[in-house]
Amino acid sequence: MDLSVTIAGVKFPTCFMNASGALCVTREELITLGRSRAGAIVTKSMTLEPRVGNPEPRYYGFTGGSINSMGLPNLGYRAYAEMIPELTRFGKPVIASIAGLCEDDFLTMARAINQARPDLIEVNLSCPNIPGKPQIAYDPVDSERLLKRVRPLITVPMGVKLPPYFDPAHHAVMAEVIRRCGVDYLNLINSVGNGLVVDPKHETPVIKPKGGFGGLGGSLIKPVALANVRAFWKLLEGRIPIIGTGGVVQGVDAFEHVLCGASAVQVGTALVEEGVAVFERLERELTAELAMRGKQSLEECRGKLKEL
Amino acid sequence: MDLSVTIAGVKFPTCFMNASGALCVTREELITLGRSRAGAIVTKSMTLEPRVGNPEPRYYGFTGGSINSMGLPNLGYRAYAEMIPELTRFGKPVIASIAGLCEDDFLTMARAINQARPDLIEVNLSCPNIPGKPQIAYDPVDSERLLKRVRPLITVPMGVKLPPYFDPAHHAVMAEVIRRCGVDYLNLINSVGNGLVVDPKHETPVIKPKGGFGGLGGSLIKPVALANVRAFWKLLEGRIPIIGTGGVVQGVDAFEHVLCGASAVQVGTALVEEGVAVFERLERELTAELAMRGKQSLEECRGKLKEL
Ligand SMILES: Cc1cc2nc3c(=O)[nH]c(=O)nc-3n(C[C@H](O)[C@H](O)[C@H](O)COP(=O)(O)O)c2cc1C
Ligand SMILES: Cc1cc2nc3c(=O)[nH]c(=O)nc-3n(C[C@H](O)[C@H](O)[C@H](O)COP(=O)(O)O)c2cc1C
Ligand SMILES: [Mg+2]
Ligand SMILES: [Mg+2]
Repeated sequence: MDLSVTIAGVKFPTCFMNASGALCVTREELITLGRSRAGAIVTKSMTLEPRVGNPEPRYYGFTGGSINSMGLPNLGYRAYAEMIPELTRFGKPVIASIAGLCEDDFLTMARAINQARPDLIEVNLSCPNIPGKPQIAYDPVDSERLLKRVRPLITVPMGVKLPPYFDPAHHAVMAEVIRRCGVDYLNLINSVGNGLVVDPKHETPVIKPKGGFGGLGGSLIKPVALANVRAFWKLLEGRIPIIGTGGVVQGVDAFEHVLCGASAVQVGTALVEEGVAVFERLERELTAELAMRGKQSLEECRGKLKEL
Repeated sequence: MDLSVTIAGVKFPTCFMNASGALCVTREELITLGRSRAGAIVTKSMTLEPRVGNPEPRYYGFTGGSINSMGLPNLGYRAYAEMIPELTRFGKPVIASIAGLCEDDFLTMARAINQARPDLIEVNLSCPNIPGKPQIAYDPVDSERLLKRVRPLITVPMGVKLPPYFDPAHHAVMAEVIRRCGVDYLNLINSVGNGLVVDPKHETPVIKPKGGFGGLGGSLIKPVALANVRAFWKLLEGRIPIIGTGGVVQGVDAFEHVLCGASAVQVGTALVEEGVAVFERLERELTAELAMRGKQSLEECRGKLKEL
């Protein structure tokens, strides 16, 4: 089965790739992704300056999901800008994710990263884990101003990574922002922000930063991710391609994302838990799912959820 | 083990009760709750006029959770007002939940229900399942205006049921609204709004209303519920009692809610799936949890989560 997909004119050899933050911080990790079956290399969201991130423990995996408050540990955009030419030689797209701590950071990084020529640039408006910083994407006015300033600086396809929304009114407002800002693809969703997992044995949270609050990922967020993919797919009438992220642990999860409208999917928690071997398993499982249902291609399933 | 609790001066024989919407629409269901081990009788959120609700299927339970878009099927506030005197005779508190379709509805119902003298009145600002209606609680200005108008009409303890928030900035704003409005207790959380569960076999959603979107409940929302209990507990410095709702399926889940700051807990999905026998099981399991950890009372655990 051909699982390749094209997003914003860029061809991906398979529809499965890492989610930003999952095994993609260091040069070694990024090269390992390049050599793996991953359909793209997505960088960790980079900031202006290198960051060590929040104190540990800052990631915790459990049955059904994960919680993390990494605090954007990354090498800083200069290091990634230097690496990009090397990473583009693996025969798969490179997506560079940028996350400013203020609006001007986004502009500085967009300019420099655009010059390094990754295949796509992803503007991460949804990092929930910087103590004291609310998510930009939960403010449509701030989001629109930022996107309109950053858009002209980027000449490769530009994507936007959004957090989940839980109210149709919020979906509608953000879809209009996206429509007005010349966005080439959407990545839905970032972690479900500011959850709390408790260890009843020790009567503590399971992670240290922010009193234990962190972003949720894995199976438990799949219904939230599917809802956001579906909501934006419908509001934007399928005109802006969507990378579905959230709860992709088995092949069937990817199939569900595609039914809701996703063109490709990213794997966060399952990649952290399983390593890059996850990609081969997911390809095999999705191929079996599609074959079992008599599907010839992903394309014929995209967005085709049949409402009751 | 004594699992009784006091909230806003009202004594509950145990800390477990139904969540609004779970087996509490009809007189029969409410009487069954009265006869059960439930620590209170919570009514379905009532509206001005009786409602048949959304088309079926509108509830779906699965491993790890549930999705619903009931559309507030209920008998209308007049029917509940009439029933309340009878329901208060079971030796446990009656909580009447009101959910207007507009602000004036809340005022009309608050007046009439207050006259019927339930033990507490819960103002539900978080119904996510009325097509076309955003959640009031996602608008702090609307919420504050409504609460300030409804507050003087209610002479029994007044609670507010909120939806989950996912950003500390939102927690902070709503905590200030709650503080300013004379709220006697909080109920956290209502369903995680507008999720989507897909049936991959039939390539359909699992519920019919709203294209398949619905509120999520059960285990998968526990980290979101605990986070909201904890966030409001800390912001309000433990001064406003909290009923923890969301993901209470086993005794240990209640223990975690209490560690985060809950005084009592409500059971939605697990009650729908298991019936009123769930209360006895939960009492037994929580008693065993507490005994195992050498705890003498719920009180000594409340809010005592130890941050790392
Ligand atoms: C350890 C970790 C670090 C993450 N860091 C980032 C990040 O830097 N940028 C970003 O856009 N998303 C980040 N995320 C969110 C993931 O990219 C993804 O959106 C989320 O985990 C949901 O996918 P999942 O259910 O497969 O985990 C991170 C997630 C995890 C688990
Ligand atoms: C079938 C159903 C109907 C519900 N109806 C209401 C309602 O009328 N009013 C309300 O405040 N919450 C309603 N809820 C939300 C629950 O009270 C509860 O907040 C939510 O389900 C989370 O608890 P759980 O994880 O135990 O299910 C409903 C939930 C379900 C499953
Ligand atoms: Mg992070
Ligand atoms: Mg409902």
